[in-house]
Amino acid sequence: MSEPAQPYRVEVPLRWSDMDAYGHVNNVQFLRLLEDARVVGIREWFVGRPSMLDEGIVVSRHAIEYRAPLTYRPAPVEVDMWVTKVHGAGFDLGYVVRDPASVGEAVYAVAETGLAYYDFAAATPRRLTADDRAALRSHLGEPVSFRWSGR
Amino acid sequence: MSEPAQPYRVEVPLRWSDMDAYGHVNNVQFLRLLEDARVVGIREWFVGRPSMLDEGIVVSRHAIEYRAPLTYRPAPVEVDMWVTKVHGAGFDLGYVVRDPASVGEAVYAVAETGLAYYDFAAATPRRLTADDRAALRSHLGEPVSFRWSGR
Amino acid sequence: MSEPAQPYRVEVPLRWSDMDAYGHVNNVQFLRLLEDARVVGIREWFVGRPSMLDEGIVVSRHAIEYRAPLTYRPAPVEVDMWVTKVHGAGFDLGYVVRDPASVGEAVYAVAETGLAYYDFAAATPRRLTADDRAALRSHLGEPVSFRWSGR
Amino acid sequence: MSEPAQPYRVEVPLRWSDMDAYGHVNNVQFLRLLEDARVVGIREWFVGRPSMLDEGIVVSRHAIEYRAPLTYRPAPVEVDMWVTKVHGAGFDLGYVVRDPASVGEAVYAVAETGLAYYDFAAATPRRLTADDRAALRSHLGEPVSFRWSGR
Repeated sequence: MSEPAQPYRVEVPLRWSDMDAYGHVNNVQFLRLLEDARVVGIREWFVGRPSMLDEGIVVSRHAIEYRAPLTYRPAPVEVDMWVTKVHGAGFDLGYVVRDPASVGEAVYAVAETGLAYYDFAAATPRRLTADDRAALRSHLGEPVSFRWSGR
Repeated sequence: MSEPAQPYRVEVPLRWSDMDAYGHVNNVQFLRLLEDARVVGIREWFVGRPSMLDEGIVVSRHAIEYRAPLTYRPAPVEVDMWVTKVHGAGFDLGYVVRDPASVGEAVYAVAETGLAYYDFAAATPRRLTADDRAALRSHLGEPVSFRWSGR
Repeated sequence: MSEPAQPYRVEVPLRWSDMDAYGHVNNVQFLRLLEDARVVGIREWFVGRPSMLDEGIVVSRHAIEYRAPLTYRPAPVEVDMWVTKVHGAGFDLGYVVRDPASVGEAVYAVAETGLAYYDFAAATPRRLTADDRAALRSHLGEPVSFRWSGR
Repeated sequence: MSEPAQPYRVEVPLRWSDMDAYGHVNNVQFLRLLEDARVVGIREWFVGRPSMLDEGIVVSRHAIEYRAPLTYRPAPVEVDMWVTKVHGAGFDLGYVVRDPASVGEAVYAVAETGLAYYDFAAATPRRLTADDRAALRSHLGEPVSFRWSGR
């Protein structure tokens, strides 16, 4: 299993209000930025199929590691996003939050989200079609390199 | 290392706006609830000492696992909070987000946060005093029981 | 038309994250505090009737004037809330955001919200029952005293 | 006093989380969108001068009127922004929140914000330089056309 040649890249704009009283983008708001990357990405990955988001998908877990403080600026951050695992009940997404090449080299955070397939109408888990799983597998890459390994 | 006889318990009020378009408390907002529990808890744990929060502490990582959907209601949720590790550069907090006994038995989420000691004035890491570390150790308990164990 | 003998009073807890990079509760978050006061108040005002909120009500306008900076503290603020007008298509609410008596004398903001009756199921405006309008009239008081009068 | 030939136009991206449990961009979040338009606009209006925002400016009031429900979509909304009044202690901004021409004709909200000049370092009001006031006057236009006129 290797990283996809080209991880999916989303430019996510910051808001001034993402900063907290310490004057940095708040740690919780990073998860908000990832949510926006996910909403954009998953729509595009499943173009032409009924929206995965609406049918839908629920977040079952997050893990995030902060690497550098981020301050509001007009330039968006870049979120690189790829699939780290596909299984019968859901899939995992990996992310790197970084500066666009034009802004700098900083990596602000790495993260992983566990997502579960869900049928909102029936309020039950559901299974993906073979086509949907193939779409996910085309974005498959390496596990996220967290520095923190204990538990 | 055993769970403290009495984990620190904070009642955290919900806001109607914690719900997202799916009508549930949004997964990112759970981290916001934990932030509020932490702000209250850490103030109390270090009463009589210069505020750890102001001196301060920075979040280095989060891991959170969602167990049940939560809908807004006037009753607060309970956050049980304890220290899972104390080390030279910081400490880890464990949490369980649950209903108060009067409301029900549900566990909505379990989570862990890595915190690093930081000196905001000098913008450098710092070390804790022996007293501060003793205060933390009095809240020491078991690691968080995440269901998800892979990586 | 005189102020009700006893304006409806709601204690609204702050969150640490209500503060922005200036270290004060952000001006937009004040509207969030009012939303929470409204959710609590309107539920109580219509106890025993189908929830006005769910049937429901939509916000048609806000006006808010800031009087003093507010910093996060564990103690909630008090929101005094009353009806300033009842008409066929909706009603207006007035608010004062202040310290509880035990904390101080400060008034942080005064505000007014225009609300329109709405039928979410039918996606059309609706009319209130005579009972609902009587419930609103029992909370009727003076217009909000804004300092700013121009437009 | 006429509207400036060209009101200042800012594209403000939505976030999926701007929607509330009713599935519409929440009324409070509209003020958040205006904050972002203001942060971008005021930086540009005072290019080459010490940032007005940092020196700075505080919000003294808002008035907002909602015209149409807005649902999240990837396309940003457009915020047209202009100065409605300049005086010794501050200035007023008017806004229209609308669709970009490519998306549609909808006007979602009109609003006005009162801003006061403030010296954060000295924690006192301040006066603007003649240059700053000239910069503001170049954006001067008509008062906002609120439908609601009573008070």
